[in-house]
Amino acid sequence: MNLLKTSYTFQVSPQSVDFRYKITLPALTDLLLTAAGYNADENGFGIRTLQQNNSSWVLLRLAIELHEFPEQYEELSIETWIHDIGRVNTSRNFRIRNNRQEIIGYAISNWAMIDMQTRRAIDLNSLPTIKACVAGDPVPIEKPAKLGPVEGEPFEQLKVRYSHIDINQHVNTMRYVEWISNYFDPVHYTSHQLKRFDINFMSELVFGDEVVVTGQSTEQHEYSFEIKGNNNTSCRARLLFQPIRPSL
Amino acid sequence: MNLLKTSYTFQVSPQSVDFRYKITLPALTDLLLTAAGYNADENGFGIRTLQQNNSSWVLLRLAIELHEFPEQYEELSIETWIHDIGRVNTSRNFRIRNNRQEIIGYAISNWAMIDMQTRRAIDLNSLPTIKACVAGDPVPIEKPAKLGPVEGEPFEQLKVRYSHIDINQHVNTMRYVEWISNYFDPVHYTSHQLKRFDINFMSELVFGDEVVVTGQSTEQHEYSFEIKGNNNTSCRARLLFQPIRPSL
Repeated sequence: MNLLKTSYTFQVSPQSVDFRYKITLPALTDLLLTAAGYNADENGFGIRTLQQNNSSWVLLRLAIELHEFPEQYEELSIETWIHDIGRVNTSRNFRIRNNRQEIIGYAISNWAMIDMQTRRAIDLNSLPTIKACVAGDPVPIEKPAKLGPVEGEPFEQLKVRYSHIDINQHVNTMRYVEWISNYFDPVHYTSHQLKRFDINFMSELVFGDEVVVTGQSTEQHEYSFEIKGNNNTSCRARLLFQPIRPSL
Repeated sequence: MNLLKTSYTFQVSPQSVDFRYKITLPALTDLLLTAAGYNADENGFGIRTLQQNNSSWVLLRLAIELHEFPEQYEELSIETWIHDIGRVNTSRNFRIRNNRQEIIGYAISNWAMIDMQTRRAIDLNSLPTIKACVAGDPVPIEKPAKLGPVEGEPFEQLKVRYSHIDINQHVNTMRYVEWISNYFDPVHYTSHQLKRFDINFMSELVFGDEVVVTGQSTEQHEYSFEIKGNNNTSCRARLLFQPIRPSL
């Protein structure tokens, strides 16, 4: 029995939209993680509580499917719960609704809890507060994919700077997604809608790292990405689009 | 007599703060412009109304002085009004308060209204709705400075991409400020607090432009910046810091 709040409502702010006034993928990802953060906090296992025990959550994989992208000033509600818990990782599901309370998409995320000193995973079965929160409801999308290496040409090289980092001086998740989303030009975004997004996080980027972003089209409307920092693979992603048919 | 709302309250969102959990200069600039936009809308001369007449506001200069930077989840209130109106430009003032309603800073902005077809300034004296809104109250900071050319070495080169542009495919104001703020490293931000920020906008950057950002220290704790796009000066800025004394 869980009487705690599991749904969080956000207004799409002007800095969350792109040139089409639609929410961007980085902003959407950020809202999902913010909702996850609120929900973990309210259930007693948020980042701040964990830090007191020298542990922290690490996002391993995320998949999002959305068939409608809210526009500036619209509200979206994100419902989130822990779906499953294993020894070294847990999956958290998301259901996304528009301002008419219609379901517009789903997401699934996989997390590990690590000991900040040893950087090793903590056995989640040893944590009764989290186990008590497993709600179990599945969502009707595929689990986040495990993504392989990407060939292709680098399209972006940059250095990790002040505006990219979070409290731990690691690159903020939103920035990875932003760098990937910059592979496409405005013409692409005008003529295509994102259908599914998968991302895997492998190692952290820190202040001063030299970053290279590689992208390639792997199948029709499908693109794969790899972000390396100082030649180490930090992140891989895959985006699947569908063409927008011009209205008759 | 003006019975319309002139104060707007915002919560500092997680994506608006830096590694110190304090609001960033780009996020603060964005909130000032958002408040200005709301206020112009409510008084009948917002961007959307103007677009129906094929005209638009253009931000020419901005100066901000702040002695306290709100932290994540804190609220800040921005009061804004038109201070003065000339033939080709108008100044809009701002008073910024923290969540205890204490004044933590001020800002002054200068704007022109342009005809979107001819790109020329419109005579503001011909617009009675705006003239009726001039409140006249000054704020106790210097007007935005007119900034001269900057020597120095380029510290950033990049290409204008999807995530940088707004509805007109021009670079969003926040991005200029972000690129400038990236001149400094976390050590600088930990040991200094921004005291005053001046920025001048000269020409727009558009999708695909090759951008070069130059910075140099001009006086003690003072830094000057210039952003060029395809070798044209697009923007100049100046930041004045003060060292944070370590607490005893």
